[in-house]
Amino acid sequence: MTVNVLFSADAKHFADWVDSLNAALEEARVKSEIDFACDDPAKYDYVVYSPDGGLRDFSGFVNLKAVLSLWAGVETLASNSTIGCPICRMVDPGMIEGMTEWVVGQVLRHHLDFDRFLDAKPGEWLQHLGPPLARDRTVAVLGLGQLGSDCARALNSLNFRVLGWSRTVKNIRGIDCRSGNDGLESAVSEADILVLLLPHTNDTENICNASLFAKCRRGVVLINSGRGALVDEGDLVAAIDNGTVSHATLDVFRQEPLPAQHPFWTHPKISVWPHIASETRFRTASQVIAENMRRGGAGEPFLHVVDRQRGY
Amino acid sequence: MTVNVLFSADAKHFADWVDSLNAALEEARVKSEIDFACDDPAKYDYVVYSPDGGLRDFSGFVNLKAVLSLWAGVETLASNSTIGCPICRMVDPGMIEGMTEWVVGQVLRHHLDFDRFLDAKPGEWLQHLGPPLARDRTVAVLGLGQLGSDCARALNSLNFRVLGWSRTVKNIRGIDCRSGNDGLESAVSEADILVLLLPHTNDTENICNASLFAKCRRGVVLINSGRGALVDEGDLVAAIDNGTVSHATLDVFRQEPLPAQHPFWTHPKISVWPHIASETRFRTASQVIAENMRRGGAGEPFLHVVDRQRGY
Repeated sequence: MTVNVLFSADAKHFADWVDSLNAALEEARVKSEIDFACDDPAKYDYVVYSPDGGLRDFSGFVNLKAVLSLWAGVETLASNSTIGCPICRMVDPGMIEGMTEWVVGQVLRHHLDFDRFLDAKPGEWLQHLGPPLARDRTVAVLGLGQLGSDCARALNSLNFRVLGWSRTVKNIRGIDCRSGNDGLESAVSEADILVLLLPHTNDTENICNASLFAKCRRGVVLINSGRGALVDEGDLVAAIDNGTVSHATLDVFRQEPLPAQHPFWTHPKISVWPHIASETRFRTASQVIAENMRRGGAGEPFLHVVDRQRGY
Repeated sequence: MTVNVLFSADAKHFADWVDSLNAALEEARVKSEIDFACDDPAKYDYVVYSPDGGLRDFSGFVNLKAVLSLWAGVETLASNSTIGCPICRMVDPGMIEGMTEWVVGQVLRHHLDFDRFLDAKPGEWLQHLGPPLARDRTVAVLGLGQLGSDCARALNSLNFRVLGWSRTVKNIRGIDCRSGNDGLESAVSEADILVLLLPHTNDTENICNASLFAKCRRGVVLINSGRGALVDEGDLVAAIDNGTVSHATLDVFRQEPLPAQHPFWTHPKISVWPHIASETRFRTASQVIAENMRRGGAGEPFLHVVDRQRGY
């Protein structure tokens, strides 16, 4: 039986995906036809989806088995009331690896004060600072999903003291895991570096606000590669200006690309990154999509189904 | 019995060391008297040494049990013909940890192209590059002593493909270890990033020269936190200018501080670091020195004795 698939994403992505998707489907023995433009919505078994394809109204897609997101963040899908079938998040091993590499790199950049040396003037032989070792630095990772827990594990393997925080109680070897509101306040109060890898939900919107910054150690570094909406922008600037936050490395924003006139661009203690921390990798992500279609055909449960109440 | 110690280093270091050294000696139950200026050379059992103390002529120190270096690099001591007793290198767990953190940070900085994003102009939302994952990058670590092997292990745990090279054959779990001249050429020919952590000896002087660069992959990144004399400076600049080396991150130089008029300072593809990759850490290093004095008193073999033929 041939499975009908609509690949709904910005047209510029088609070429990137088509080969790896076909290869993965063949490997999973899923016979498929992939459309890159919507024909008759009722004919599709699956929509492979990213928000930049523009599809918002799923009401005509009456025979869908699942919407398979190309993105890890699914807030626009989860809240889309026209979708009546399961939604699966992308949990791409390649994306997890990429995120861990980026977060560890940024933590080390701040831990070792790289910017200070990169900004030195020619001839300026800066004095040794004798920075603490990683074992004397505490990194708090907020969000212990697939991305956060892998980052926490890697930071721990480099000797950092790692605190983790998540909504629900988790248990990760080597990580001091906390949960709930009290856990959040105690985690941020001990952190030298704060990494945000939470999903964007009603509960996490603006979780980094003045009241949380008030609990932080003076001079904390903020690294946000989760979602822009986790941070109250005005409260962040105030926390930098009053010395609570010594630097913010931001890869995600409420509006992307970050508008050219946005004050973050020129703030001396904010570095703006163009949402490159990690991305879906065609080869590994195609394998996840093909595996879900195989499961759908075999009547097995899908991987990474979104809990729409929770929002991720 | 009281052990007489001369602490021979730049006077500015005395205050840094005295407390941790006394604490470590007390913990090791070594009764000692430490002089910070040379009284009668014949009275000393040990010289705790760094080159910046200026001591070169050891001929009056006729009763020394050992010279205990504060530095990992001992080329000035090994070649000092006035020394008749064992010389012990510093192998400081804190220094090893610091070096690994710095090297991993620099490898990730280049792997993820951090400089490109840090140098972006306000409003410049750079296109995704989709860099390879660490598992698709090869890092060659030249030198597999305590520092190199720990760096190799940490890079491997972050998924990098790691090649190691050393003079003698070594075996390190997860690392593709090579040795000899053929091994050196094959290692550099596969490397995207080349890390130098060799000691400075007659054999390693100018090991990075035109003939080695000719074996490298086009666009290789060089990270030198070993010794300045490992690199032929003119050959390096030529290799950058002809596109073989895409960037050199240098923390060590033939003359330090690097003279203000040295062309490295302003070369757009060289970043100069003021010998801060890692340093002896007072607390952990003092424990190593105290342990060697305890061993000397108990008639046990010293730790980390220099092979003066080999030069390290």
